[in-house]
Formats: sequence, C-alpha cells, structure tokens
Amino acid sequence: MIGYLNGQYLPQENIVISPEDRGFLFADGIYDVIRSYNGKLFRAKAHLDRLSYGAGALQFNQTDFGYLEPVCERLIQDNRLYRGDAVIYMQVTRGVAPRSHAFPPIETPLTVYATARPFQPHQQEAETGIRVILVPDQRWARCDVKTIGLLANTLAHQRARTSLAAEGLFVRDGAVMEGTHSNVMAVFDGKVITPPRTNYMLAGITREFVLRLCGELSVPFLETPLYESDIRNADELMIVGTTVEVTPVIAVNGENIGSGEPGPLTRKLQMAFHRSVGFAE
Amino acid sequence: MIGYLNGQYLPQENIVISPEDRGFLFADGIYDVIRSYNGKLFRAKAHLDRLSYGAGALQFNQTDFGYLEPVCERLIQDNRLYRGDAVIYMQVTRGVAPRSHAFPPIETPLTVYATARPFQPHQQEAETGIRVILVPDQRWARCDVKTIGLLANTLAHQRARTSLAAEGLFVRDGAVMEGTHSNVMAVFDGKVITPPRTNYMLAGITREFVLRLCGELSVPFLETPLYESDIRNADELMIVGTTVEVTPVIAVNGENIGSGEPGPLTRKLQMAFHRSVGFAE
Repeated sequence: MIGYLNGQYLPQENIVISPEDRGFLFADGIYDVIRSYNGKLFRAKAHLDRLSYGAGALQFNQTDFGYLEPVCERLIQDNRLYRGDAVIYMQVTRGVAPRSHAFPPIETPLTVYATARPFQPHQQEAETGIRVILVPDQRWARCDVKTIGLLANTLAHQRARTSLAAEGLFVRDGAVMEGTHSNVMAVFDGKVITPPRTNYMLAGITREFVLRLCGELSVPFLETPLYESDIRNADELMIVGTTVEVTPVIAVNGENIGSGEPGPLTRKLQMAFHRSVGFAE
Repeated sequence: MIGYLNGQYLPQENIVISPEDRGFLFADGIYDVIRSYNGKLFRAKAHLDRLSYGAGALQFNQTDFGYLEPVCERLIQDNRLYRGDAVIYMQVTRGVAPRSHAFPPIETPLTVYATARPFQPHQQEAETGIRVILVPDQRWARCDVKTIGLLANTLAHQRARTSLAAEGLFVRDGAVMEGTHSNVMAVFDGKVITPPRTNYMLAGITREFVLRLCGELSVPFLETPLYESDIRNADELMIVGTTVEVTPVIAVNGENIGSGEPGPLTRKLQMAFHRSVGFAE
C-alpha cells in the first residue's frame, strides 16, 4: 500500500514517525476517516472541515486542510481502490519537537499522515443488528474535537468486545452520549431521537447525513438527551457512523430493544443511506 | 544521544516509530520520568512500580518493568550523564497493529522506548517562586494512570505560559487537583494540605516523598480537598514533582499568596528535599 507523509507518497512500510512526534508523546493531534464507495469519496468536504475545526480548537499553525482532498483521491488511485469500499485515514499532529508540555515554536511543521485501505463492510452486523453495552463515559470534556487521544474509547470498545457486544455506548451522568466510534439514535413512537451536539459528543458526519435523510423522508426527529433509564423502552435503536453506516442495535446490556429484531424505521434509514451512496438495494 | 527501543540501544536520530504504533494512533500507552542526580537514579523503583500500575490498568500483556532500571543506568552511562542532572523518559505502548479500537492479539509486543538527557533545573523559579493560573480540568476520569494522553495537560500548560505563568493548576468541580505536570501543596496555619489520592489525580512520587519529609521534620500535614475558593487564603503554596522538585508558588491568577514571597515552610521542605538528593545547601 502507498501512504502519505508530509507531502510524500511512500510505500506504507517506509513510513516512519519520530518518537518525538507530539502525536506519539502527548496525543497532540487530530484525525478523520473518509469512506470511499467505488473510488468516490463520501462527504469529503465535511470531514476536512471537521479536521479544520479540530486544528482550530488545538491552536495548530495551519487549519485549512482542503488540500487533502486531492491527496485522498491520489491514495485511492495509487492503491487501485476505485472498485468497492475503502477508507482513508488522515492524522495531523503538532509536529516533532523536543519533549515539553508547552507548544513548540509556531513555525514547527505539522505532521500530516494519511493511508487508504480496502474496507470490508460488516454486512452481517448491518443485516441482523448488533448487541451493545453501556459503559461509563470516562473521556475528557472536549469530545467534540476528533483527537487521537482515544485511549478511553479503545478501553470501552474492548470491554464491549469482551462482553461479546459489537459496540459500547458511553453514558455520562445518566445520559447516553455516543458510541466509542459511532453516534447513537433511538426511535420512540415513530420519532427518531439523538443526543444534541455538545462538547461531550462528536458531531458525526453520518449522524448529520441521517438526520437530513429523516427530513427528506418526512420522518420526525429530535435532538434531545437520551437517558440511560429510558433506552430500554426505545422501540428501535441504531448506531451510525462512517464505518458502521446505519447499523441496527437489537440489544443493550443483554436486554432486547423492541422485538429484538432490527426495526422498520432503522431499515428505512439504512436503505435510504445505501441508496444515497450509490448502492443498488 | 543514545536512546533505547525494544531492547536496542541506538543513536536517537536512528530511532523511529511505526505510524501504526498504538501510541501514535490512540494514545494507548503510559510513560514515566526518572530524575538522576550525578548519575544516581532518584526513586527509580517507585517510578517503575507506577509504570506497572498503569500497564495493569490498561491491561497490557506485560506489567513488570523492573528490567528498565538497568536500562536507565546504561542510558546514563552511554550518554555520559554521571555528572549533574539528567532525566530519563520511558514510554510503553500497546505496540504496532493495524488500526482498530479493539486490542490487538495479546502476543503483540509492547513498544518500549526510553531516552536520557541532561536536565537544566529551573534555579530561578526554585528561588524566587513562580506564578500559576487556575485552569478548568477537562481531563478524563483516570488521571491516576500516567498515560501519554496528555493533550489536555499541554493545552492547559500552554494557556499558563501564554498568561506568563509557569504552571496551570487543574480545578475540577471547585477543587484544585494538581498541576499540568506537578502536584500541589498549600500551607494553612502551619499545616501542609494536599489533595487526596483519587482517580482524578496522579500519585506523585515527589508528592509522596515530600509528605514523608513532613513526617520526618514534624511538619503536620493532611491529605484533604483544596478548594478553589480557599486557595487565595493559603499562607503558602508550592508545586512538587520530578522536574520542579519543590517550587514555591507566589501568585495565583495574579493575586499574591501570603506575602507574595516563598514561604518559610516551603523553603524548609525545599532544603530538606535538596539535602535528600545529595545537594550541598
């Protein structure tokens, strides 16, 4: 595979990082993941805008990452990923500098790294639905920034896997925030409910897209807190995100949601999503 | 300089990290810093025990890092740091694996990296004292683990520097927890007060050592919450840590503490600390 590092396209195995990269020493970096369908980037601008938002929040010396769109396209070409599904991973750190909590000199170049890989969608999970568990949200207070400080996410996700669940949903102070790498949506009485955008949640691009689909399909939706105590009474539950797309959730902590089968509104949104990205259903 | 990576001693400039190291992608790692005085490691076992504690908390496949003590000693020798001050930085991550939130196979080797460098103590700050600011504690809920997920610390420290302060003190829910890379101690009516060990604070080795010095010097001390609303009424304030040792704090958010000069109890502990590490006063 060919990857990208600081302006160069290199065989992945030749790409190396300095141990003094602030991404390695301090988690002082941001990332994003773009899906491509048959070589076509999905919502690339929204992902690059989110990278810019994060770079601004972290006071990076550069916040415009529009130039990465052609980089992503070239990675798709160079890796011959123009058929089927792929994901482009992009990471930007504050660069390489002798270890010190204080920021390095403002002119220190950011480290910009990207890879493209074939992606195998989780067909089975999308069809039969997944089981999730609730996990205490131990993350920091700026979950709206997509930083590489993902340790709490990996620990929670691993805990889910160990419980034979496919995802963990973070609960902070009694409210369900999002998954470890997805957003969450519930259905109550025909209405889609999803937690509002706050500093405790990532503004998911698929989340935004699915809400737009709700609008187009005249499905009522509301951005309002989703309480832990209410979630078992949801008629349907789903997670949404770049890799999971729209995936039904059929059980939480071992208790069925609704009938324990993917719900009709979830299916409707899933199909609408697939149509949007060019799938034949 | 000579550094250490996974069993090898290499020129620092030859040490490189894979971009798929989980330290770089997920902040999935821990670190520690040991000070050496004239080539002698200070409290090495306590630092390596803390590394073990962190490795256990993160469910690493290896939690005994006793073997790093001779590694630190060799780094001191190879880098000719047996005179004066030095710091040994050690970092352990969950290793290199294709990016996935779930843990890699249990047999994946950890990445173990260490460097030794000469250290220039902040003499001026230790003598005249420093100014600090209070910063909202936005960190995650497992501050007792010394992880490389330090973005909140670097942002807070930079904010302090921008305010012409030398350190930021984290305030969570009205209580002062610790500095961005130090612990905090206050003096009220001749008694040393320091926040109790919880999941919101690192168990500082210098903190522990200074409390032991208090005992030896018959200075009364108490581990109890230090409230933001009380801190301005402290008679003295100090930060303690591996690099700052015992450093007087003379102002918080621009307001003087006590007389605005380093206090007598702070000086007493500072001198006792210096004697312990073999300084002539």
